[in-house]
Amino acid sequence: MIELRQATEVDFSQIWLIFHEIITVGATYAIERDTDEVGAKSIWMETPQETWVAIEGDEILGTYYIKPNKAGGGAHVCNCGYMVKSSAQGRGIASSMCEQSQVRAVELGFRAMQFNFVLVSNTKAIGLWLKFGFEQVGRLPEAFEHPTEGFVDALIMFKNLT
Amino acid sequence: MIELRQATEVDFSQIWLIFHEIITVGATYAIERDTDEVGAKSIWMETPQETWVAIEGDEILGTYYIKPNKAGGGAHVCNCGYMVKSSAQGRGIASSMCEQSQVRAVELGFRAMQFNFVLVSNTKAIGLWLKFGFEQVGRLPEAFEHPTEGFVDALIMFKNLT
Repeated sequence: MIELRQATEVDFSQIWLIFHEIITVGATYAIERDTDEVGAKSIWMETPQETWVAIEGDEILGTYYIKPNKAGGGAHVCNCGYMVKSSAQGRGIASSMCEQSQVRAVELGFRAMQFNFVLVSNTKAIGLWLKFGFEQVGRLPEAFEHPTEGFVDALIMFKNLT
Repeated sequence: MIELRQATEVDFSQIWLIFHEIITVGATYAIERDTDEVGAKSIWMETPQETWVAIEGDEILGTYYIKPNKAGGGAHVCNCGYMVKSSAQGRGIASSMCEQSQVRAVELGFRAMQFNFVLVSNTKAIGLWLKFGFEQVGRLPEAFEHPTEGFVDALIMFKNLT
């Protein structure tokens, strides 16, 4: 049974494996491909407001963060990032995390959720966000240099939670 | 005569006055309205790749920063932020800085420039960016809580520099 709970300090060693696997490929996130553990912890656990994990027994299968997307007058809109272990793909974990993160966002007082950089090449993610009612509110031309597909556009997706 | 040059450490005391004036009002930037000097220095001088000032004699009338908008595969698109001292408004300083920042962006190897959060209430800025050939590529619904106008939309504006 897969459970969602907030990440603790000791979870980071497993989160790092997932993060490192995804960032090294560099096909989905605009994060330096050689980010080390210290950088990863800052990005995924220290900068965000909260970090969550999807866990089965002792194994972390996925993780997400939630944070204000902007400061000051923009702090009522949150941003989340999701990562799923490659060996756990296809089990609906991203879907479960996205659903729960929207509930959590409302609990934390956010009014909307924004994804800043969804690559058009990441069709699986786009399909999922659309299913959850996110709308495309922007498109950044050739904003990402994909490791195999060259320059690809990135979408900005937005969902009102109120 | 107004000159544009890179900011030095000692310029920060004057940059802080401009930053503080603008951020306290909180009507244009999604930055915490009570940001202190340490935070301001981090945002405007330490995090960016470069910081520039528009200076007349010994007086700094405006300032801008330039930095990669995203890391990794997104690092070829830059982001700039501009601030002009209220007493120096209307003298074309934002315009001069925007023009020069595009030249500088190309020198630094950037292929495009993106503004992530241009409030629809900031009509002066929008007019200027459109004049310079920036295009609206996105619109974030009610993404900013304006101090007097309530929730306002923010535009994402983009210009290819190649």
